[in-house]
Amino acid sequence: MTDAPRSVFRHRHLLGIEGLSPLDIKALLDLADAQVEVSRQVEKRKSSLRGRTQINLFFEPSTRTQSSFEIAGKRLGADVMNMQVASSSVKKGETLIDTAATLNAMRPDIIVVRHHAAGAVHLLARKVDCSVVNAGDGAHEHPTQALLDALTIRRNKGRIEGLTVAICGDILHSRVARSNMILLAAMGARVRLVAPSTLLPPGIARLGFETFTSMSEGLKDADIVMMLRLQLERMNGSFVPSVKEYFRFYGLDQEKLGYAKPDALVMHPGPMNRGVEISSDVADGAQSLIREQVEMGVAVRMAVLEALASHLPNA
Amino acid sequence: MTDAPRSVFRHRHLLGIEGLSPLDIKALLDLADAQVEVSRQVEKRKSSLRGRTQINLFFEPSTRTQSSFEIAGKRLGADVMNMQVASSSVKKGETLIDTAATLNAMRPDIIVVRHHAAGAVHLLARKVDCSVVNAGDGAHEHPTQALLDALTIRRNKGRIEGLTVAICGDILHSRVARSNMILLAAMGARVRLVAPSTLLPPGIARLGFETFTSMSEGLKDADIVMMLRLQLERMNGSFVPSVKEYFRFYGLDQEKLGYAKPDALVMHPGPMNRGVEISSDVADGAQSLIREQVEMGVAVRMAVLEALASHLPNA
Amino acid sequence: MTDAPRSVFRHRHLLGIEGLSPLDIKALLDLADAQVEVSRQVEKRKSSLRGRTQINLFFEPSTRTQSSFEIAGKRLGADVMNMQVASSSVKKGETLIDTAATLNAMRPDIIVVRHHAAGAVHLLARKVDCSVVNAGDGAHEHPTQALLDALTIRRNKGRIEGLTVAICGDILHSRVARSNMILLAAMGARVRLVAPSTLLPPGIARLGFETFTSMSEGLKDADIVMMLRLQLERMNGSFVPSVKEYFRFYGLDQEKLGYAKPDALVMHPGPMNRGVEISSDVADGAQSLIREQVEMGVAVRMAVLEALASHLPNA
Repeated sequence: MTDAPRSVFRHRHLLGIEGLSPLDIKALLDLADAQVEVSRQVEKRKSSLRGRTQINLFFEPSTRTQSSFEIAGKRLGADVMNMQVASSSVKKGETLIDTAATLNAMRPDIIVVRHHAAGAVHLLARKVDCSVVNAGDGAHEHPTQALLDALTIRRNKGRIEGLTVAICGDILHSRVARSNMILLAAMGARVRLVAPSTLLPPGIARLGFETFTSMSEGLKDADIVMMLRLQLERMNGSFVPSVKEYFRFYGLDQEKLGYAKPDALVMHPGPMNRGVEISSDVADGAQSLIREQVEMGVAVRMAVLEALASHLPNA
Repeated sequence: MTDAPRSVFRHRHLLGIEGLSPLDIKALLDLADAQVEVSRQVEKRKSSLRGRTQINLFFEPSTRTQSSFEIAGKRLGADVMNMQVASSSVKKGETLIDTAATLNAMRPDIIVVRHHAAGAVHLLARKVDCSVVNAGDGAHEHPTQALLDALTIRRNKGRIEGLTVAICGDILHSRVARSNMILLAAMGARVRLVAPSTLLPPGIARLGFETFTSMSEGLKDADIVMMLRLQLERMNGSFVPSVKEYFRFYGLDQEKLGYAKPDALVMHPGPMNRGVEISSDVADGAQSLIREQVEMGVAVRMAVLEALASHLPNA
Repeated sequence: MTDAPRSVFRHRHLLGIEGLSPLDIKALLDLADAQVEVSRQVEKRKSSLRGRTQINLFFEPSTRTQSSFEIAGKRLGADVMNMQVASSSVKKGETLIDTAATLNAMRPDIIVVRHHAAGAVHLLARKVDCSVVNAGDGAHEHPTQALLDALTIRRNKGRIEGLTVAICGDILHSRVARSNMILLAAMGARVRLVAPSTLLPPGIARLGFETFTSMSEGLKDADIVMMLRLQLERMNGSFVPSVKEYFRFYGLDQEKLGYAKPDALVMHPGPMNRGVEISSDVADGAQSLIREQVEMGVAVRMAVLEALASHLPNA
């Protein structure tokens, strides 16, 4: 690891983008840039986390995020242990706090947590001696997703500052949107939110974000079109749109993408609902960065794990 | 790894036995022979796959096959990641193609796939840059099972060519039978299929395989009696035999084994239904190779992983 | 590993505390003492089990025990493979014996087993060539729990001999109680059993243990108060106490703890039912060793794995 990020990123946990300075974010992105090459080698192995114990504690299932953290940890030489909720003591009525205290006593270095409740990760971080990484908590934050999105943008556009980024779709239920809004605003991008009014967080306009209910207006002159997954599983009956109607007004197809700049790039955090929030030709088209986002996810998680490990009390 | 197999086995994937030449098969068996000793050491560890990422992507559960691939990869020094379907994005409606593309972007070297649909593994292989190993797709192929069976036969009989092999039981639903039929025919064995007519694939006789509906005729002078698992879970009501009746006519007991050569050897891919397709005294008897098949399974998978890894684009 | 424990602990398996001599127990505790420091380093890694294969075969889910064994094995450099029952061939009707024989053929060095049936682990041990560790079998034994409890006591009280230990609660259904009773008696502690008469094993008094149905009498002058989890899931309708009533008479709160010696220490194997068998202020209080027990669990399991590995036939 170079000295530069050590000298800048000094947090013990990564619980959210909120609370990070632009210098913190830049330090992690610079470190992640250097990690990209590791995964492109035949022998994808560093030893910077050798002998460290990383626990992936997932209270919600996830293909991408858990796999990405597991691969990131293993490529750094860490001992990685996955803990699924289904086979855990939570079933026996143990509290989150007791689970945290138990894991802590096994002396891990890093716990990566996904939990269905906003705030659960912060609570857990206060109860342990090791570093905690938020891998998604309820509709609150998903900081490594925002970092990997920023890395992908920076590598393709050369900068984040001054870009117009349109975040489109189910903003109300999206921790991805929330973390991205905070990061992009901190790094000087112009953030627009495009969604039906029922999927916009109440009062969001007062926080300085431009809101649009029309894709044609919201995407005008955008450099980046960031689509969100329609999270039908988080909608409790209040407003469940017809999928067909939703696609007609808010699904990104080639026609709507035409509203954005000619060199606009398309992003999606996955997993995609093809034909709901995005058409297949756009998802797989020349302007899509969706696969590259996944690759950058591994690099960003390697960077985060390495940065936190270098600041452990006894490191 | 010796130079010999490198110079012969040049495929990027192992999707089936179909398409392999006798030289390909011989190369893998020779390489596997050398791997057997690795697992018999105190320190069962090579470094030929150090820093490589192996993903075991199982859409169907399996004790033997997944464990065997996991142990094989770890003994070669690979970083192995298991992905269960139950905790994956497939539940969220993600397509197989998107799952493949996502995993591919994490830059694995090898993906080992089991899927309930014939052809799914071929589809996946076309969408990724890494090597793909078929660990069983529907009723189609299970190539590493056929290879481990061949290795077990060759180590015990000294050859495959010229042997008479009787494959008995639920041939219709069996990918194990299918891969074995192709391999054994390619290597010059005489293959007989013994089953009730309802469990024989229609038109199979036209492909040059001798078929029998009687165990006494089918096993006559056989060198190898290969029993199959009765796959009740794949039978959709069409024909579900009475287990008691089935055992009486097609279950391998000492009496029926007496029809084969005196030095005939008994095989079964497991897991066994004792008292259904095989009696316990035969399964555990002196002529049984069933435990040795499992040991050879690890060796064959080590050989396959190593052979594929040595032919990766950037290796 | 030092020579001392090698010269004393000569068993191939650890199936229970029953059958161990006081010297065996002392050897494991001494070895475990030395392992505690490993997990307190930045680089928590030894190479004593490098290239060894450890299989964790869990027929019952468990956060603590499986995680503890997994971390212990990885910190010793072993290749660790977890096998969940839900995704295993047991579903397909394979017998425990066939599962054991299959795993054995993959040539593991150690199998760690948890099973819901008392005696299953002994049965399995007779069918394999490698070492077997009992990680809990029905209501029978849980030897590593008793060893970690003993280590925790010895490190805090300087000795086990001569101490008065009150084991309280659901003794009837508890393998933890059973293993602890045998170990503590063998090491010269005075063991008291405190429970409602319906939760005491019939005839236990005849085995030389003092029994009490009153906490005030049972805890009088105790050095150690060892609470047990109320295992509601093991009670088949025979006697299910009202939780509120149970806490009033048998739950450990500050008032009942006052019956014990002023420097008495409190233990619980976890997971805790707070407000059922123990109050939160006692669980988290100054006299509680509950977190330290978890840390000692990793050390004890490292010691057991290392001791068994050094006595393998080919080691």
